Amino acid sequence: MALAVALRWRSGGDRGGCFAFREQAHAQQQHQNDFKCQLQRLNAHKPDHRIESEGGFIETWNPNTKPFQCAGVALSRCTLQRNALRRPFYTNAPQQIYIQQGSGIFGMIFSGCPETFEEPQQSQSHKAQDRHQKVYRFREGDLIAVPTGVAFWMYNDEDTPVVAVSLIHTDSFQNQLDQMPRRFYLAGNQEQEFAQYQHSQKGKQQEEENDGSNIFSGFTPEFLEQALGVDRKTVRNLQGENEDEEKGAIVKVEGGLSVTAPPMRKQQQRPQEEEEEEDDEEKSRSKGKGSHKSKNGIEETICTMRLRHNIGQTSSPDFFNPQAGSITTATSLDFPALFLLKLSAQFGSLRKNAMLVPHYNLNANSIVCVLQGRALMQVVNCTGDRVFDGELQEGEVLIVPQNFAVAAKSQSNNFKYVAFKTHDRPKTGTLAGRNSLLNALPEEVIQHSFNLRSEQARQIKNNNPFNFLVPPRQESQRRDVA
Amino acid sequence: MALAVALRWRSGGDRGGCFAFREQAHAQQQHQNDFKCQLQRLNAHKPDHRIESEGGFIETWNPNTKPFQCAGVALSRCTLQRNALRRPFYTNAPQQIYIQQGSGIFGMIFSGCPETFEEPQQSQSHKAQDRHQKVYRFREGDLIAVPTGVAFWMYNDEDTPVVAVSLIHTDSFQNQLDQMPRRFYLAGNQEQEFAQYQHSQKGKQQEEENDGSNIFSGFTPEFLEQALGVDRKTVRNLQGENEDEEKGAIVKVEGGLSVTAPPMRKQQQRPQEEEEEEDDEEKSRSKGKGSHKSKNGIEETICTMRLRHNIGQTSSPDFFNPQAGSITTATSLDFPALFLLKLSAQFGSLRKNAMLVPHYNLNANSIVCVLQGRALMQVVNCTGDRVFDGELQEGEVLIVPQNFAVAAKSQSNNFKYVAFKTHDRPKTGTLAGRNSLLNALPEEVIQHSFNLRSEQARQIKNNNPFNFLVPPRQESQRRDVA
Amino acid sequence: MALAVALRWRSGGDRGGCFAFREQAHAQQQHQNDFKCQLQRLNAHKPDHRIESEGGFIETWNPNTKPFQCAGVALSRCTLQRNALRRPFYTNAPQQIYIQQGSGIFGMIFSGCPETFEEPQQSQSHKAQDRHQKVYRFREGDLIAVPTGVAFWMYNDEDTPVVAVSLIHTDSFQNQLDQMPRRFYLAGNQEQEFAQYQHSQKGKQQEEENDGSNIFSGFTPEFLEQALGVDRKTVRNLQGENEDEEKGAIVKVEGGLSVTAPPMRKQQQRPQEEEEEEDDEEKSRSKGKGSHKSKNGIEETICTMRLRHNIGQTSSPDFFNPQAGSITTATSLDFPALFLLKLSAQFGSLRKNAMLVPHYNLNANSIVCVLQGRALMQVVNCTGDRVFDGELQEGEVLIVPQNFAVAAKSQSNNFKYVAFKTHDRPKTGTLAGRNSLLNALPEEVIQHSFNLRSEQARQIKNNNPFNFLVPPRQESQRRDVA
Repeated sequence: MALAVALRWRSGGDRGGCFAFREQAHAQQQHQNDFKCQLQRLNAHKPDHRIESEGGFIETWNPNTKPFQCAGVALSRCTLQRNALRRPFYTNAPQQIYIQQGSGIFGMIFSGCPETFEEPQQSQSHKAQDRHQKVYRFREGDLIAVPTGVAFWMYNDEDTPVVAVSLIHTDSFQNQLDQMPRRFYLAGNQEQEFAQYQHSQKGKQQEEENDGSNIFSGFTPEFLEQALGVDRKTVRNLQGENEDEEKGAIVKVEGGLSVTAPPMRKQQQRPQEEEEEEDDEEKSRSKGKGSHKSKNGIEETICTMRLRHNIGQTSSPDFFNPQAGSITTATSLDFPALFLLKLSAQFGSLRKNAMLVPHYNLNANSIVCVLQGRALMQVVNCTGDRVFDGELQEGEVLIVPQNFAVAAKSQSNNFKYVAFKTHDRPKTGTLAGRNSLLNALPEEVIQHSFNLRSEQARQIKNNNPFNFLVPPRQESQRRDVA
Repeated sequence: MALAVALRWRSGGDRGGCFAFREQAHAQQQHQNDFKCQLQRLNAHKPDHRIESEGGFIETWNPNTKPFQCAGVALSRCTLQRNALRRPFYTNAPQQIYIQQGSGIFGMIFSGCPETFEEPQQSQSHKAQDRHQKVYRFREGDLIAVPTGVAFWMYNDEDTPVVAVSLIHTDSFQNQLDQMPRRFYLAGNQEQEFAQYQHSQKGKQQEEENDGSNIFSGFTPEFLEQALGVDRKTVRNLQGENEDEEKGAIVKVEGGLSVTAPPMRKQQQRPQEEEEEEDDEEKSRSKGKGSHKSKNGIEETICTMRLRHNIGQTSSPDFFNPQAGSITTATSLDFPALFLLKLSAQFGSLRKNAMLVPHYNLNANSIVCVLQGRALMQVVNCTGDRVFDGELQEGEVLIVPQNFAVAAKSQSNNFKYVAFKTHDRPKTGTLAGRNSLLNALPEEVIQHSFNLRSEQARQIKNNNPFNFLVPPRQESQRRDVA
Repeated sequence: MALAVALRWRSGGDRGGCFAFREQAHAQQQHQNDFKCQLQRLNAHKPDHRIESEGGFIETWNPNTKPFQCAGVALSRCTLQRNALRRPFYTNAPQQIYIQQGSGIFGMIFSGCPETFEEPQQSQSHKAQDRHQKVYRFREGDLIAVPTGVAFWMYNDEDTPVVAVSLIHTDSFQNQLDQMPRRFYLAGNQEQEFAQYQHSQKGKQQEEENDGSNIFSGFTPEFLEQALGVDRKTVRNLQGENEDEEKGAIVKVEGGLSVTAPPMRKQQQRPQEEEEEEDDEEKSRSKGKGSHKSKNGIEETICTMRLRHNIGQTSSPDFFNPQAGSITTATSLDFPALFLLKLSAQFGSLRKNAMLVPHYNLNANSIVCVLQGRALMQVVNCTGDRVFDGELQEGEVLIVPQNFAVAAKSQSNNFKYVAFKTHDRPKTGTLAGRNSLLNALPEEVIQHSFNLRSEQARQIKNNNPFNFLVPPRQESQRRDVA
């Protein structure tokens, strides 16, 4: 539905700082867990690993570094070329995917939900018409909610490469395994992208025995023949044994996929419609195709839940100041699927020299991914130490732990970020400006807490008239109280 | 209510594999916790310890082995001879008990609920008529829900030994202690059955001081005299000091217990009534006796909650195929007490050579206990490795971690199992057959994900027309799509 | 609202037993976590650290000792002299504050809630009238609920020193950091009171760089100038750089604070009004002042939530026996703010030689703080060992883990305690007296479980006719069943 600006993350290459100690990580692990958030120093993180596939590549951030351990998350980024299909997989924890660039279709499999999409009758087919579960369109700026254990696939049917950033909340109570992120592929023989960060080297031998590495690979062919009623040759393909090992998790579909999906609307790069219209659109769309559907109880609930929500290209942001920028947040209140995930996300866009005032997250860790441009950021911990002070650039990630204070100042004209948060209804406290904590304090409490004159206390409460976003200085500052 | 088939677990005796390293377990503990689910190899577990009592015995599985640590559970099995009473105890985590064999009565004490059962006036008694809380009947196939900290006792009033398998979910958020399962006995001086797996040897001295070992033992007699208003001799009995140390947790009641309990219905070994009828029966039963009751607000809620639910002998299974077998699941939707526990269970019965198709639990660990017969089972992890491949026999337990794929093929005519799950509304995804994940995928996605021809993809979706349970091969396989 | 009895905790001084091993604590940490509740021995804990401030002092208990680790809590106690202001701060976990002595005002900042309190127009002020969020009165016996991350301040406007005991539940799921309690101060340059218990010494260098130590200290002055629109001099004060390092977390307000707060009602030391009346009072008060208020949706919910609840001076206790004492519990049912915190508290008062019968908490850890007097206490674990047996005195704290049995006998005429519990709807099971577990058991089950004669079993059920609190022996004991 959207044409994409050519955004690009700086990829690979980083071997410094926090990524160099992968070998030592496990020896320090038990230690890390006890004090996992005693962070003397935060870093801007780049992906430290990249796995090439036939149709694209997947980059991963090391989940064993202390800030990622503190936040209890794992991060990866997937790039799909035209006609590339990311093979279906599921994950042991809830997951949010942000579409940084491109558009296409995706599917999620809810076991037990009906197959409501029907492919058109093909002349050459004998009789069996294909039916499958709902297929969704996605576009730039979409947030996709993938519940724990639900199989997901996606496909790029446009020329622009699709770039999708995916956050896994391994520390979620929905993950009943340990903190390691795990991808369970339904197909192929590629390496699970987080497997390299795992502890043990003992698995290597088995790897030699089982060539493929999807969840069918491990079963004996006899089991699969009976379970599926197919012949040995088909089973070998299911197990990923007949294929080129280089194909990987993202395969190229020659000639393109022709899966039934709702039509793509023609639109400008910055769509005018409101998110509500999109919902209407989704509803009418499903009604349009709805003649095929036989709705029942289950279908009305999880089976027809909205699984995507645009925050990056919406025309109704939550904070907006034309000189400073805008912020849009998706919580479980506007995107109910997030209630299942207990996660949320925020998209922000800042003009040059505009600021995000110092603020903190009351009830969530925040994983800030820079999509475009660069900004100065500072993070402060509970002992008043500045644990991060630096420029965050396109493709870099900063983890801001719960309650740590953070501020940012854009260094480029179009600084954009997405911040994933580990709570479905995150709360933020601002430390400056209208509606800030300081504004809510009695003037006298400010005066005596900070050892100020009454007039200074009043200035602190009143001088910054802006909410959260502060325009560049020349325009906004030095207003004294009348 | 039911007569029992003579099921028997193979008990004791196992010293191999995963049970041999009890001494090393603690040194490795911190390591285990960090990567507790990085399981290169699963095992069929047998109980490794058995404690004899006057009226029966209790067997335990070592909760410090890696798979049990991963699932966050502890397992034990209790066998009661005729007229044996398991003394009351409570546990630091929610617990499900499955009655593998036999029938009898049980009680649970909800502090603050009224005593609604009244014993008949006895001629020799002076005046005080005994009142107590509800007493329940249980029979083979029952699942009993025991909330955290709630005291429980049971009694076998039949000739057939009662065999009860008990799962404790130590990793539950309701357990605010550490992961060690703890029994708190109200009576006796027996060893707490999981005490041997505990870390410290320092407690030995105290053990010498305090002869008994129930929760009264540790108080000074003066405290108990004042608290209960009884003499020193009675206090000694409360503390377990006057009794034979060999009695243990299960005592024999000479002449049998004559506690007021609802009458047992005459019935066949496989009862015909539906579970709903049972509920009706329970309701009418309580109404029948209801003249003694003075209902109030509290009583209507937790005090009268149904605490047992039959899954092993029900005539309304959730999956049923006469050639293959049947599966019955108890979740918080049909057995609301499980909502408190956040646990559930599944009973399955398979005919020879019938299969459970490859499937996985989206949101739960599964603890599979074989009740009868034997089956080939295979488990596959996220890297496609087969981490278990073997025959599981009567009395053996296999832990299938969340998201790991598992399949089974019965090797005997009446393979029966109970699978405890660590979620009150578990979700399962099947990887073959009707309503499987593959069925929900568009044919083209299958085709390109598995590198198959269109026809093969269609076969994968359509060749197995069965849900979950697949009949023996000759009957079901090799059906090609017309 | 209340005049205070001169209660005083015994402070400082303890260097024995469980507080001596601060250095070793971290080496043992990973070990502790695995078996954190395998407590062979409990101790009476005193604060082991005291930080002096201009207007008072803060004492802390070492949160790294095993019992505190087991309960997942941290404890501190703050004493405010007349006209002392505790500077605003927030904490990384939910917190309950019990007012042991004194009265005053407090504020909590809910980001996004309106400023509904308006200071009267001052003649010398130019135009800007001060508005701020709600300010609350507190008095002795109040329990104050502080949600995770919400900024809190308090002020003593009376002569009697305010003594406030504060429990932080670091093990709460609302704390997404590690188990270390963290105070984030908005003002001043004092040491965070739990910082000393933290692991790392590496932060020392940074401390030299940043003089102040509040959350503004760590930001560069340029950031704060833009964010607040104030000059460098004011910024320095915000960062705590211009002030005497000795002022600390509690500052003295010369001449006193004149913040708008509802008027204090004249009353006796033991107020006659019911808690419900207090609520009415609160409502009418807000209506009285309500002409300034512009109510909206948000305001009606969290913004106007009741944040204090009196348990220490209420005239409607939950258990009451004039010879024995009284017990009052605040749960989320009577104090809904506790639903957010998932915590609760109990206040108890016992006469000399009265007893709390042996009992246990089904679903919570309990942190017992002695406010006045002394009592003999005994705690028993699951192996029947007495892990605590001693006199608990004013100012001492005993941690009673979930399911451990505990009993107490007052040694002074006015033994008073507050017990913080780590569940918002705690359940207790008593082991003696009316409504105890023994009372709910059938007499025959008691008889055979404890190896008693029928008559003795009847005595156990009936001899103590009291609920929970047992009066001194001469009055209550030796009643035989008629």
